[in-house]
Amino acid sequence: MENKKKIKVGLIGLGTVGSGVFKTLKNFDDIEVTKIAVRNINKKRDIDGLDNSIVTDDAYSVVNDPEIDIVAELIGGLEPAFDLIVTAIKNGKHIVTANKELLAKRGQELFKISEQYNKVILYEAAIAGGIPIIMPVKTILAGNKINHIEAIVNGTTNYILTKMDVQGASYEDVLKEAQQLGYAEADPTGDVEGFDAAYKIATLASITFQKRIDINKVYREGITKIRANDMEAANDLGYKIKLIASANMYDNGDIDVRVHPMLVSKKSTLAHIDYVTNAVMLKGHPVGSITLSGPGAGEFPTASSVVGDILAVAAELGKSEYILPMMRCKHSEDANMIDIADTTNKYYISINAKNNKGVIGKIGTICADNDISLESIVQRCVSDDNTANITVITELVKEKNMQRAIKLFEQDGNKVNSLIRVQV
Amino acid sequence: MENKKKIKVGLIGLGTVGSGVFKTLKNFDDIEVTKIAVRNINKKRDIDGLDNSIVTDDAYSVVNDPEIDIVAELIGGLEPAFDLIVTAIKNGKHIVTANKELLAKRGQELFKISEQYNKVILYEAAIAGGIPIIMPVKTILAGNKINHIEAIVNGTTNYILTKMDVQGASYEDVLKEAQQLGYAEADPTGDVEGFDAAYKIATLASITFQKRIDINKVYREGITKIRANDMEAANDLGYKIKLIASANMYDNGDIDVRVHPMLVSKKSTLAHIDYVTNAVMLKGHPVGSITLSGPGAGEFPTASSVVGDILAVAAELGKSEYILPMMRCKHSEDANMIDIADTTNKYYISINAKNNKGVIGKIGTICADNDISLESIVQRCVSDDNTANITVITELVKEKNMQRAIKLFEQDGNKVNSLIRVQV
Repeated sequence: MENKKKIKVGLIGLGTVGSGVFKTLKNFDDIEVTKIAVRNINKKRDIDGLDNSIVTDDAYSVVNDPEIDIVAELIGGLEPAFDLIVTAIKNGKHIVTANKELLAKRGQELFKISEQYNKVILYEAAIAGGIPIIMPVKTILAGNKINHIEAIVNGTTNYILTKMDVQGASYEDVLKEAQQLGYAEADPTGDVEGFDAAYKIATLASITFQKRIDINKVYREGITKIRANDMEAANDLGYKIKLIASANMYDNGDIDVRVHPMLVSKKSTLAHIDYVTNAVMLKGHPVGSITLSGPGAGEFPTASSVVGDILAVAAELGKSEYILPMMRCKHSEDANMIDIADTTNKYYISINAKNNKGVIGKIGTICADNDISLESIVQRCVSDDNTANITVITELVKEKNMQRAIKLFEQDGNKVNSLIRVQV
Repeated sequence: MENKKKIKVGLIGLGTVGSGVFKTLKNFDDIEVTKIAVRNINKKRDIDGLDNSIVTDDAYSVVNDPEIDIVAELIGGLEPAFDLIVTAIKNGKHIVTANKELLAKRGQELFKISEQYNKVILYEAAIAGGIPIIMPVKTILAGNKINHIEAIVNGTTNYILTKMDVQGASYEDVLKEAQQLGYAEADPTGDVEGFDAAYKIATLASITFQKRIDINKVYREGITKIRANDMEAANDLGYKIKLIASANMYDNGDIDVRVHPMLVSKKSTLAHIDYVTNAVMLKGHPVGSITLSGPGAGEFPTASSVVGDILAVAAELGKSEYILPMMRCKHSEDANMIDIADTTNKYYISINAKNNKGVIGKIGTICADNDISLESIVQRCVSDDNTANITVITELVKEKNMQRAIKLFEQDGNKVNSLIRVQV
């Protein structure tokens, strides 16, 4: 690959997300990070494979570098991010960014300039971190008229609400704990008052409905007034309380975008999205309702989306082989398939023991002889005919050992009702 | 658009999926369905806008039609689907299919021929219906090394297991009910013995791991032996029983693909995927774990994926404007944003009523005066100071009416603790 021209990427920012992007891009031999802008060049950085000579504290030297094809802006905030991106576009670079605030507040200016210079701005990472949402909406879901979005896109508030629910604790107590654990910032306003979620839903609604969304017209209400009592009452009524970012497009074209706490039915997928997990539910025709969930933030999940966007640009520039022209796929090599007998699993076993006297001891002996450790064993009831109903959950066990043990249980006069594998 | 050359699509099959595809494609004015092959040309079809002159019972007249750019094969089964697709490819057509059995059993032959003729075969609809999974794996997740998949990809078995769990009923009883409702076929073998799920997971593993999967080496175990007792025991232990299609790639490259019932933790997203809903969980680096869920079958959800694939081919052929070159997006028009005061919502209200005597009556009167219907009203407890704690859930109400009522509650001497909107 050395002789082939590589795609050259400049990073602005080497914090949590920037580090994840740098580490991930090292796996792609047709992509090269050639310059990285940081605020403090003297800060100690323990990043494997980082050549300090490419690190600079002059971000303009990245966006002005004529060799660079793609600039990934990963510093956040309005300025200098806005001016850096504009300069990069004018210098002929494509942009990948995770900056939801900038997109929500000044996206239209940026998109106008990018069109003018025929450059693209990609921002999968700006909404719901590692969850694929923008690209599916733009490609495989393009046949749909999507008119409703409900989403949990802020990990901090979802963590706080989940903890309040699980512990019956107050908002104030859980916030303090979240701050100590690093899940909430010292000044939590951006998260708990719904600003972060508003930036994200405005940006997502804009792509999905193909309309410009005025962030100032997005209704926003935070979680600070939710009481432990509300959590309890909601539970009794069959609901959970979540901070929901929603967007609706009505048949007449009117659009309603908002962020506020909401009681969501326990029967809905969103009710089970807990702690820092994010989820986006889309409804439309013909697809119906789909929900995409996963990690909404963090070094590596966010890097997944930034790198996905960088590879997409590289593919369009015809210089990467990691994304094939959209529809192709690669699988010309045979898989080396493992036989089920050689796999390792946890098991649930239901046994009817003929004679319950000493049966647990016997089962234990057979297990020990076959290298099977037990996580739990419960003798659930004894029937009239003196049989015991025993439920076992094992630790990780070789399938062939388990099958051997099952035979031995049966030879011992027991009836094995069920053998079902358990999720690890 | 009339003067521009349209993409011409031929459909093979006009059953459930075919009809959905035909109806959906009518919304796209640069795509035209020019020929449709059916088994029985005399069958009455009530499909809006269908010109009977394009319907034929000679499927070869579709794949041999020199005008057609894309053939969508929607009949399923091995033959004649295989030969029709091969003929179409040799005649220069791109293929979109929902045929998981064909892909799992003879995919390699098809992909070889398609490469030879430089045509593509797309099959988003073959795995998990309307859920976007193949396209995200091939594009925005391309920066990942995905090494683990756990999925619920068969609606019939998930429906049966959910019903067994909810009703405490036996497999046999629920199967009968599912057959009556049309969720299970008269001969349910393909679903309940896990064949359908095996085809899907083999195909998905092949794309994700970029290896050929031998369907004969996929371990397969159905749900027919699951007992109501197992459901109950699993519940007690904190699990649900689901038919899980899984695929693992180990560090040494060995691959383990299987379908069998599994106890999944109630804390996992998959445990809450009920009835005919499907879900696919992917784990990899850097993204971590993401779960995509939605309708796994049906006329319109499946059509969403088939049409998405058709649009993707059309875009690559440079003849559709519905999918922009991958990374672009369209949003140059201002949204008409609705003010929150003009929206309609359901509400949860928590009120501390100063004097509990007659308070429910007063609340009822204020609500009636403001056009607010109540779904439920609960007086939860009365404190020492003679205040009553009242929880109200409303029907759909205008926000401005609700805000007016809240003021009136407060003027009446009550304390409104919380006003939280409820998911509709």
